[in-house]
Amino acid sequence: MLFSLGSGKASMDPALINFKVLYVLTQLCGLTMIVLVATWIGQHFGGLAGTSNPGVEFNWHPLFMTIGFIYLYGNSILIYRGFRTTRKKTLKLTHAGIHMGAFILTVIALKTVFDSHNLANPPIPNMYSLHSWLGLSAVIVFSLQYVAGFVAFLAPGLRENYRIAMMPLHIYFGLFGFVLAIASALMGITEKAIFAIKTPAYSTLPPAGVLANVIGVLYVVFGALVVYLATEPAYKRKPIPEDTALLSSSSANE
Amino acid sequence: MLFSLGSGKASMDPALINFKVLYVLTQLCGLTMIVLVATWIGQHFGGLAGTSNPGVEFNWHPLFMTIGFIYLYGNSILIYRGFRTTRKKTLKLTHAGIHMGAFILTVIALKTVFDSHNLANPPIPNMYSLHSWLGLSAVIVFSLQYVAGFVAFLAPGLRENYRIAMMPLHIYFGLFGFVLAIASALMGITEKAIFAIKTPAYSTLPPAGVLANVIGVLYVVFGALVVYLATEPAYKRKPIPEDTALLSSSSANE
Repeated sequence: MLFSLGSGKASMDPALINFKVLYVLTQLCGLTMIVLVATWIGQHFGGLAGTSNPGVEFNWHPLFMTIGFIYLYGNSILIYRGFRTTRKKTLKLTHAGIHMGAFILTVIALKTVFDSHNLANPPIPNMYSLHSWLGLSAVIVFSLQYVAGFVAFLAPGLRENYRIAMMPLHIYFGLFGFVLAIASALMGITEKAIFAIKTPAYSTLPPAGVLANVIGVLYVVFGALVVYLATEPAYKRKPIPEDTALLSSSSANE
Repeated sequence: MLFSLGSGKASMDPALINFKVLYVLTQLCGLTMIVLVATWIGQHFGGLAGTSNPGVEFNWHPLFMTIGFIYLYGNSILIYRGFRTTRKKTLKLTHAGIHMGAFILTVIALKTVFDSHNLANPPIPNMYSLHSWLGLSAVIVFSLQYVAGFVAFLAPGLRENYRIAMMPLHIYFGLFGFVLAIASALMGITEKAIFAIKTPAYSTLPPAGVLANVIGVLYVVFGALVVYLATEPAYKRKPIPEDTALLSSSSANE
């Protein structure tokens, strides 16, 4: 039951109307962000290519990081609040599924940036920039979170009190990784703009430079909306009858 | 009564012991961050100078932003939880006072970067980079927050229900501005490292480059600790008898 907020009830909670408006705004912001990144690499940096052209192969990196490590990551966080009439078990599987999609795109995005460095002539050193240090840290946080979340909330057998104790940590480090991914993307845009916007230079704010900055602003707005929607207590999902009827541990994972 | 957590009680809340440990860690991290920024500009970029040497005058910018717009901003956020036995009115005035100190350092830091652009030969364009767009946005968010916070929580006359309604927004935008300041600092470090670490190049990770990256990592750790300490429900300050005895609106501003 996709996006079934309210579902036609006359007495809809006013907080949920606000949520719905901001949720739609978040999606519009996220999709615009992806379209603008595609436009940026397509119009100004030669589009997409394979390993035969490492300089252009690089362009998969910002595109797949934006789709996977920002847009899907953010949407996976919001799934519990955006689809609140879906039962908990389905939401948890969807959360794990979207996160897996985000992870696969992120790994491809990492492969293409290493390729673009290693296959360049002369090769470009890897992992020297602050962007690379913090970006890889965000990927590691995300991966550890995935394993910990799987063990704690999807795999059977963990005791209820451990699940309850894990949840605040899962939420904190999930949001931390997401914000760190966005901060890393801002550094990445900054690097690419300085290195690649040359004629005319980034400092004269040509169209490629304005587009870079607008993409950066959209990253921030998207991130701020996701964090707000995921943390505002009034938007918290309430357990539905199906949760308690079908699950033994719904309260632990709320 | 500075840093009077626990104050020798045998039955201290375990959550407050955790808080105390993390609070000390936050201070160590913040002070190390400031020392390393001072070392970075001192050892590698010529220290500090006035308008006669715009390239070196620039160095005030990262130093004062780090002290004011990151360290003091973060500490001002934490004042309510770090000094929980101090009465509310004193905490509010201290919060406003530290924020004013942060604002003054931030304005000086902005002046020196504009100087370093305008007085250079040839002049460097202003406000073209994503760093400048988001950094100035963070300063504007901070300034609007200051005015709104002053009107809502320090000036008399605002009705209790407005104060209560303002508080979640004040907290959200306060933390948003703080995280945006840190993201801007990460972009600023990235720019400076690319522009100024040349012989040997940043990509070979010379000492100036390693130091730049370590400073960036410390910004993230400091920011993550401040946000955690400021949002974890177990660390929330509880009203003390002096608050209700001396203030008429303590509950609104908790």
